[in-house]
Amino acid sequence: MTHASSDIANAIAARTALFQAIREAADTNTLPLFRARPDVENKAPDGAFDPVTEADRACERAIRALIEASFPDDGIIGEEYGTVRPEAAFQWIIDPIDGTRAYVSGVPLWGTLVGLLHNGRPCAGMGYQPYIGEAFVNAGSSAMHLHRGTEKPLSTRPCTELSAATLFTTTPALFGREERPCYDAVEKAARANRYGADWYGYALVASGTTDIVIETGLAVYDILPLVPIIEGAGGLVCNWRGAPLTPEGFTGQVLALGDAALKPALLDALAPAAR
Amino acid sequence: MTHASSDIANAIAARTALFQAIREAADTNTLPLFRARPDVENKAPDGAFDPVTEADRACERAIRALIEASFPDDGIIGEEYGTVRPEAAFQWIIDPIDGTRAYVSGVPLWGTLVGLLHNGRPCAGMGYQPYIGEAFVNAGSSAMHLHRGTEKPLSTRPCTELSAATLFTTTPALFGREERPCYDAVEKAARANRYGADWYGYALVASGTTDIVIETGLAVYDILPLVPIIEGAGGLVCNWRGAPLTPEGFTGQVLALGDAALKPALLDALAPAAR
Repeated sequence: MTHASSDIANAIAARTALFQAIREAADTNTLPLFRARPDVENKAPDGAFDPVTEADRACERAIRALIEASFPDDGIIGEEYGTVRPEAAFQWIIDPIDGTRAYVSGVPLWGTLVGLLHNGRPCAGMGYQPYIGEAFVNAGSSAMHLHRGTEKPLSTRPCTELSAATLFTTTPALFGREERPCYDAVEKAARANRYGADWYGYALVASGTTDIVIETGLAVYDILPLVPIIEGAGGLVCNWRGAPLTPEGFTGQVLALGDAALKPALLDALAPAAR
Repeated sequence: MTHASSDIANAIAARTALFQAIREAADTNTLPLFRARPDVENKAPDGAFDPVTEADRACERAIRALIEASFPDDGIIGEEYGTVRPEAAFQWIIDPIDGTRAYVSGVPLWGTLVGLLHNGRPCAGMGYQPYIGEAFVNAGSSAMHLHRGTEKPLSTRPCTELSAATLFTTTPALFGREERPCYDAVEKAARANRYGADWYGYALVASGTTDIVIETGLAVYDILPLVPIIEGAGGLVCNWRGAPLTPEGFTGQVLALGDAALKPALLDALAPAAR
């Protein structure tokens, strides 16, 4: 390791040392209102169902406070409170509650996502489910699974044929008119598929218990925190054109794979609707 | 309470005292293989994807052994090992792992379901998720939620308008040709919907965080254990004709509601495909 890269590794490690405090902040700010039938505020201008809970905002404020206290010069991109210091080399990305619909309907698959970019590239990240007490983490090197005191390495599984693959997407209703037939063709060719997972589908790719996630309409905070976890476990995340995900040129179309061998076939299938 | 009904209540209480040992048996037999990439055996004659894991069968054997040891004259209806003593007044119903697809793909929403019928009527039941350590239980009177040492009563929430309701189903692909348009009309009229929950959707109706589950193609062991939990929490479970669920005349079509006020509108919507 060169002196410069060692400096960067140390800077990343110093930052990911905050992950435990971030998990505690998530516990404090999300669990009391989970299944407590909170009032839900509708933030979509067209009246569509898009709940934001008090928990969502309180959780992001708490995480921002932790970051600001230790790394006041870092940038932050947050779902609820926007972007500060976009010119900084280190950028934090926060989705305080990914899966707000799961949260309000009582499904314990929502999660607190926190990622770190260095010069625009995802270099560390965490997905945390407070109710289960389970975290998927890459603190700068390898990907780990933490569950109530146990800590194990994550690794994707081999899957070289689409006909052997399990496929996740949150709901097929999210695909646009041109995207839907591309997705449907993959679903039909796959061995099995499931809906309803939000970020948790990506965590399962990293866990080696599912093979593919295909989604569209994502924001950077929905996926960039998860990229180092999937890639640290041996998988691959790209857009529907096969390019790495970065805030610059982000299209919202995401393909995550446990085994890169499936990439060419999937990019072919998605190409007609790839942006 | 009459003497006879007190005797029955005591007999039910004696049986549901096994629920804790059943949860421990589920832990022992399901957790070691969860996310362990087990070999999956395909039990469908047509080669369709229908995994049965070793865990599924070992779990049912362990639960049957507990029941046989304490109540050798009771009947048992199990997913994996069939029916014994169908003439007994008390019948146990076992689904060792409801949501085997969730299990093999790593989603912690599968569950061990155990129910008790008295003279063909559901009178007690439990849905248990070992990985989360969470149980939804009616031990013969009221419905309770157990989660890692806490125990709280379950209650459904009021919901008098379909336009305010959250709707669950495992996947719309399970509906038959005549059923699908009926389901789709309800989904369109509801405020929100989610896929992918298996038995857990029913648990969320009992929890008061969702309002409706509509499914078809269920077996008795998929749903009868959950009926006392939903009804004990204030909700209602029936078939698509509005009749109570019993093993006799079971159609596989299930409607669960947190608030009975929605029943007439939903039965109207489902009537064209009701068996």
